[in-house]
Amino acid sequence: MSATSGKPGKSRFSAHPPSRRDRGRIKAAQPWREAPDNDGPLVLYGIHAVAAALANPARRISRLMATENAENRLGEAVAQRGLSVERVRPKDLDRLLGADTVHQGVAAEAEPLPEPELAQLVAASASGHGPLVVLDQVTDPHNVGAVLRSAAVFGAAGLVTTRRHSPPLNGTLAKAASGALEMVPVAMVQNLARTLDELKNAGVTVIGLDGEGDALLDDAPLQGAVAFVLGAEGKGLRQLTRETCSSVCRIGTAGTLASLNVSNAAAIALHLASMQRRRSDR
Amino acid sequence: MSATSGKPGKSRFSAHPPSRRDRGRIKAAQPWREAPDNDGPLVLYGIHAVAAALANPARRISRLMATENAENRLGEAVAQRGLSVERVRPKDLDRLLGADTVHQGVAAEAEPLPEPELAQLVAASASGHGPLVVLDQVTDPHNVGAVLRSAAVFGAAGLVTTRRHSPPLNGTLAKAASGALEMVPVAMVQNLARTLDELKNAGVTVIGLDGEGDALLDDAPLQGAVAFVLGAEGKGLRQLTRETCSSVCRIGTAGTLASLNVSNAAAIALHLASMQRRRSDR
Repeated sequence: MSATSGKPGKSRFSAHPPSRRDRGRIKAAQPWREAPDNDGPLVLYGIHAVAAALANPARRISRLMATENAENRLGEAVAQRGLSVERVRPKDLDRLLGADTVHQGVAAEAEPLPEPELAQLVAASASGHGPLVVLDQVTDPHNVGAVLRSAAVFGAAGLVTTRRHSPPLNGTLAKAASGALEMVPVAMVQNLARTLDELKNAGVTVIGLDGEGDALLDDAPLQGAVAFVLGAEGKGLRQLTRETCSSVCRIGTAGTLASLNVSNAAAIALHLASMQRRRSDR
Repeated sequence: MSATSGKPGKSRFSAHPPSRRDRGRIKAAQPWREAPDNDGPLVLYGIHAVAAALANPARRISRLMATENAENRLGEAVAQRGLSVERVRPKDLDRLLGADTVHQGVAAEAEPLPEPELAQLVAASASGHGPLVVLDQVTDPHNVGAVLRSAAVFGAAGLVTTRRHSPPLNGTLAKAASGALEMVPVAMVQNLARTLDELKNAGVTVIGLDGEGDALLDDAPLQGAVAFVLGAEGKGLRQLTRETCSSVCRIGTAGTLASLNVSNAAAIALHLASMQRRRSDR
């Protein structure tokens, strides 16, 4: 696979591939904006996100742009892919991705990952691969990326999101996930309540997390196949989501501010589950 | 205190107050950039950050700009302050704060809060007001803001940061803190190792958090006066910081990715301490 083998017509980077005269520079007549959906090529940037994509055999990469420094940081992974790198300057990427984007000198154009079946995630969770995390219309890509990162750190079996009202599995999210987008399988579903029913029927304990939950999460048994369901900042769980959970728990707090950030709530829940598994193994 | 009583010469919003003809609009010849230090007036934006500032009697506010919708959301707090609101349109604030800033229709110019003495934070922690959180040169304002938010949620006694290599207690940080900047006392110190020695001498158990730590944090006693010390993304704790801690613990993980985001690590540590206190109270 060559770094210039992408389909120019579908490129998110520019309408046309660079001319011979412009080789090594990027034309940015149409600055790239993140893909609004998960169809077609997408853009990844940031050292950790791109390095993890290069290391993931399931991730097809059609184009790689990097500064000399960034290419050095990526190391062997580039050569192992057989990708030729388009040399860029930091300001070329600023122009393509927006000046506020922390691209760290590297961007890649890639294909979306194949989506796992829900049954695969359930089987992984049931066989001791950690909890599932379910996000109910969490729209902020930083938050979803941060949840993915914690899911990778604590060995979660997978992430389930709603297909609508979720950010694309793309630049900002991938950067916030710090490589975890390549490690944690993500299933996107049409109807979340139906999915939660399927999880329960498959023997998964579905625990909604909410500041107004009936029971303390600390006290809940979390060792078997478990799914944690979290809602968006401010809105929380939708009513039907909440009603479909096996139980709704709260994280015990003690302060003046009521509401945890969704990625912090997910990290605490995943850590609790990991701690319980570790203690039961002793 | 009037909303137009600020010192125009020191204003971060514009070089001159609006003329009579421009009243109700904001001149933005010099778009506001966040204050590089903690001297002089600073800018807060976002509904939660500004609402909490209005509710904090220790916070002096010299100017308040809001859309009609945002003013309605702020409610009684504005009238109780006796502030007159400068009516703006969302795009006025876009121009002042940058188009990518999620200002939610409101911005305020304010004075920094009075800084607490370290001894006050130690006394609060020793008397059961929860742990201290110490940040060793964490530079990302989103991360520091998110740590403050979790600190408020779990009732931490305070935050200690290095005076250098820390973000100003300002717009981005305040927005990420979602009001917590008004709730959690923040002490900024010149020499972190000396401060950790002072904490230990005052009877505080100083626990560094690091993925390579000797002991599991789950197993550490966290009920007395405790300080958690966290380093920046990638860099972690500086060597002298690490050597000065009473102990260095790791958060037990189980996955393929090594490193937790600093705000997630802080949230997990604060939750563990809160859980231990709750269980010992039973």
